[in-house]
Amino acid sequence: MKFSQTFIPTLREVPADAVIASHRLMFRSGMLRKLANGLFAYLPLGLLSFRKVEQIIREEMNAIGSLEIKPSVVVPAELWKESGRWDAYGDALLRVKNRLGADFVVSPTAEEAFTSLVRDELSSYKQLPLSLYQINTKYRDEIRPRYGVMRGREFVMKDAYSFHASEASLDEHYQAMGRAYRRIFKRCGLSVIPVQADSGAMGGSGSEEFMVESEIGDNTLLFCKNCDYAANVEKAGCKPDFSPRPELARSATAGTPPLSKISTPGVKTIDELCAFLKTGADSFIKTLVYRAVNVELDLKAAPGCSGLKKERPAPGAPEVYPETFFAVAIRGDLDVNETKLAATLKASEVALAADSDVERLTGSPVGFAGPVGLGQIPVLIDHTVTAMTDAVTGALEADLHYQHAAYGRDFEGWLIADIRTVKAGDRCPLCGGELYEKKGNELGHIFKLGLKYSKPMKLSYLDEAGKSHTPVMGCYGIGVDRVLASIIEEHHDDNGIIWPMTIAPCQVIVIPVKYEGAVKDAADTLCAELEKEGVEVLLDDRNERPGVKFNDADLMGIPLRAVIGERNLAGDSPRAEIKARGEKESRLVELSRAAGDLAARVKKELEKLNG
Amino acid sequence: MKFSQTFIPTLREVPADAVIASHRLMFRSGMLRKLANGLFAYLPLGLLSFRKVEQIIREEMNAIGSLEIKPSVVVPAELWKESGRWDAYGDALLRVKNRLGADFVVSPTAEEAFTSLVRDELSSYKQLPLSLYQINTKYRDEIRPRYGVMRGREFVMKDAYSFHASEASLDEHYQAMGRAYRRIFKRCGLSVIPVQADSGAMGGSGSEEFMVESEIGDNTLLFCKNCDYAANVEKAGCKPDFSPRPELARSATAGTPPLSKISTPGVKTIDELCAFLKTGADSFIKTLVYRAVNVELDLKAAPGCSGLKKERPAPGAPEVYPETFFAVAIRGDLDVNETKLAATLKASEVALAADSDVERLTGSPVGFAGPVGLGQIPVLIDHTVTAMTDAVTGALEADLHYQHAAYGRDFEGWLIADIRTVKAGDRCPLCGGELYEKKGNELGHIFKLGLKYSKPMKLSYLDEAGKSHTPVMGCYGIGVDRVLASIIEEHHDDNGIIWPMTIAPCQVIVIPVKYEGAVKDAADTLCAELEKEGVEVLLDDRNERPGVKFNDADLMGIPLRAVIGERNLAGDSPRAEIKARGEKESRLVELSRAAGDLAARVKKELEKLNG
Repeated sequence: MKFSQTFIPTLREVPADAVIASHRLMFRSGMLRKLANGLFAYLPLGLLSFRKVEQIIREEMNAIGSLEIKPSVVVPAELWKESGRWDAYGDALLRVKNRLGADFVVSPTAEEAFTSLVRDELSSYKQLPLSLYQINTKYRDEIRPRYGVMRGREFVMKDAYSFHASEASLDEHYQAMGRAYRRIFKRCGLSVIPVQADSGAMGGSGSEEFMVESEIGDNTLLFCKNCDYAANVEKAGCKPDFSPRPELARSATAGTPPLSKISTPGVKTIDELCAFLKTGADSFIKTLVYRAVNVELDLKAAPGCSGLKKERPAPGAPEVYPETFFAVAIRGDLDVNETKLAATLKASEVALAADSDVERLTGSPVGFAGPVGLGQIPVLIDHTVTAMTDAVTGALEADLHYQHAAYGRDFEGWLIADIRTVKAGDRCPLCGGELYEKKGNELGHIFKLGLKYSKPMKLSYLDEAGKSHTPVMGCYGIGVDRVLASIIEEHHDDNGIIWPMTIAPCQVIVIPVKYEGAVKDAADTLCAELEKEGVEVLLDDRNERPGVKFNDADLMGIPLRAVIGERNLAGDSPRAEIKARGEKESRLVELSRAAGDLAARVKKELEKLNG
Repeated sequence: MKFSQTFIPTLREVPADAVIASHRLMFRSGMLRKLANGLFAYLPLGLLSFRKVEQIIREEMNAIGSLEIKPSVVVPAELWKESGRWDAYGDALLRVKNRLGADFVVSPTAEEAFTSLVRDELSSYKQLPLSLYQINTKYRDEIRPRYGVMRGREFVMKDAYSFHASEASLDEHYQAMGRAYRRIFKRCGLSVIPVQADSGAMGGSGSEEFMVESEIGDNTLLFCKNCDYAANVEKAGCKPDFSPRPELARSATAGTPPLSKISTPGVKTIDELCAFLKTGADSFIKTLVYRAVNVELDLKAAPGCSGLKKERPAPGAPEVYPETFFAVAIRGDLDVNETKLAATLKASEVALAADSDVERLTGSPVGFAGPVGLGQIPVLIDHTVTAMTDAVTGALEADLHYQHAAYGRDFEGWLIADIRTVKAGDRCPLCGGELYEKKGNELGHIFKLGLKYSKPMKLSYLDEAGKSHTPVMGCYGIGVDRVLASIIEEHHDDNGIIWPMTIAPCQVIVIPVKYEGAVKDAADTLCAELEKEGVEVLLDDRNERPGVKFNDADLMGIPLRAVIGERNLAGDSPRAEIKARGEKESRLVELSRAAGDLAARVKKELEKLNG
């Protein structure tokens, strides 16, 4: 490949909107251009690396027996209505009407399409397990696309879906996927952190996310300083810290004075309360009212819920309560984790209730809710509250709070659960070590879906006895663009990209100082020899100063560089100057041995990553 | 690859809507399934062949120096507004509004995206020529998708766009593309007919379509019985046949009686006139009124056009007359070719005018228009009319026709052009031989675009002297899905597909009569040996009757079949039964030589097609 015959428009300037290294370097090295906000074009150099990421993913999927298929990107809305996601997905779903007025979806993921395809073919347990994947265009109508392809609107995702006759079979494939993902990231030269993740409203039995650390990451991750525990904050638990203050631990309920009201005129927030009562936030019980959508949890016995009725949003979907309200009581220094709350309720969505709803349901102005005497709605008690024996909390009346409130004596809840947001400094749920936080970007996600799609979409197979069952499913995604950008985030310096050998658009760049005469001949010969050895080589045949060529080679991140200059060709043993992209010093190698030397280094690097 | 570990849901039944062989066989062989009307999913077997077609196209594009890139499929409407196609493209363009209300297009082709990308990078003549391509998802909102992937809504197209500093450079690349296309189709085992095609309103200087013959083809093609002439009817010309009837040829205008009116009460159509006057349709001059949109041709001197003004539909676009009317006079036995008419007028669209317009512009009821005395609108005269010296034509009055009308004596036109629809029996424009018709489907199209996109989208480069110019462009498309379906159309029999070796999902199928004991061992060994030789092999390890396996192998069209049975394994020289898909008789080959024998046949077939 000759530089002059390709299209590598390198740039000196940094695009104004590029704040992260991968975005800057993909543009500057001529890999990528922008078509619109969140929409990009890979140019030849970028596409070469992109295809290498795809191919590594493909090989690892094939190796665990997942089969590649290619459904259309545009799919009929009917499928999304069957699964219930047409309504549930929200604004990031790009919906299209065709010329006949029919609704379609530009796929952001493909659970529906795959489930529908398998539904039409599945009859016997003998066909299971079945794992299918695609590497295909996806679209998510991000409201604020940024960071280049790290958060674009259109992207390529490998998404796999598996179908199983038993949880054990699902678990086996889920584990195999986890191992395949680890191999994929290793081969890409990526340091990836697998973390426990939320498994959603349907209570899937497992979910693991593959994260890369990133300042601009949109996930908060928690790690233990002591053991291997790692989790997304959406999922993270922590060791109970029910007695953080010695004076609270010492006081038993027996020793707590009786519940009494105190006047707290105009005091509504925890901070105001702390200032007013001159005490810490952890002495308060914060009580928040949430509105929950499509709650699957049974509420027959829950306070204030006797009038509610379950409905089936779509045929085959589980019955849910379309709209319900809950109070959540939590220690005043903690935050409610809405993802954990939604998982506890098996709700598709939870959000703080409107002020008018709070006032209607608690009978008091916002800011004075509390678990004591609250009977109109079910009260969820965070674990921490069960240890509170002398707390302050809202008295369900304007300008009044209770003091000396004790769990078990003055109030109880309808449900006790872990719904706090874990944060740095909390204790590891496994070993009790201190947790710390990092920001991360998700590159991949493996997920046990259970019956979430197979049940509403009526998948079934007959077992050996001829009895019909619904298969359980798993889904497994990797964002190809994001993997590529993350490799650059991890492998670059001030001068440009430093590609891992597996992903480099080409493995060696040959730079003749001036592409003419004996230098040209030597460069051409070296390239031919390298190609014969199966090495991917770029020849910089441009009529540019050596400095420009060196800078572009560094910017493009080609792993190995061979410079051919007149000076080193003179004499009995002509030499080439060889340097790896990450090295500072070059060394002279006899020209006759240069191709072999470079090919051996390419092979060694590939083996190190792929091995 | 073991059959039991892949997903090949073969069918006995033919899908109800499948009327052509490729549609039937892609479904029956488990290559393809339908997601919705015109939307499909390739299953593993189908995708393998699909990728082979893609790869052949990729190799041939790379070989002529075209560079692969990957722009997004969804592109901003702004680009389509710049080129003018947002308005011009019509209902087949899938338009999407995103969550912020901005307009986008799901690309049906990508002239705009490529032109915009190159515009941002192009500065110097040194960067030209430049040829870029993609193999990517396209969407056309077909009103009546059918014939499976032959006319789907979503499909994959290879589309290339080239940019040149001169017509000569464009022509050189256009010719190279033509050769590359011929190699692509040869490698795919396709008999393709290159035909001359319409080059559109902008008068591009060249256009060639690559057609396959097909009963359900949506193109009519004309071929000469005598020479190589082949053209799409949209473009086809023919040798003048101005004197088809001897009596007309003999009569000179001098001998024609003077023009006179005859009463033709209630006679409006050519058929009615023929019956009324007891003569043939070729004695009449048919006169039709057309409405034309965006005419670029200069009409300053044209009758009735002095009040018209040119407008520029988009900045940079050529100036056009938004709406104009024309009369077209043609011999009564011929049809007007609207594509040729639009090309003559350089119009983006032509269609028969509404009755009310006809009446207003001709001053007479529909059915009585004629070129004699018609002065309100420009009259286009088809070549054939210039030889008519004694014709019948409408007299611009109700129930009256002229007889003895002679071109040159009684009327002339504003413009004389070839606008007839050529049909079987007409004479070849090159050699005068008889033309015949076939139906064809277009698989590829190469096209000189000239300035059509580069001018309105303001592409420019500086020449050696620092002067700015607009590059000329070419575009070059191949439909991947259609190529695949066409290969099946050409290579099948009643039992299934007969893949060319280059496209087969795998090259050899090994069928153990019963996959157990010595037969299993022999089959496994043969597969391992074949894989060692680099042969792609499918092992039918299913617990099915041999007949079922044989039928499926035929249906899937695997080029070579090796059957291992207990009987042939007995004795001193165990044998396998080998048969090519197209052959009737199998032959016994010593098991020890089977892998070598099969590998040699695979290699030979590949060389024959690729060579």
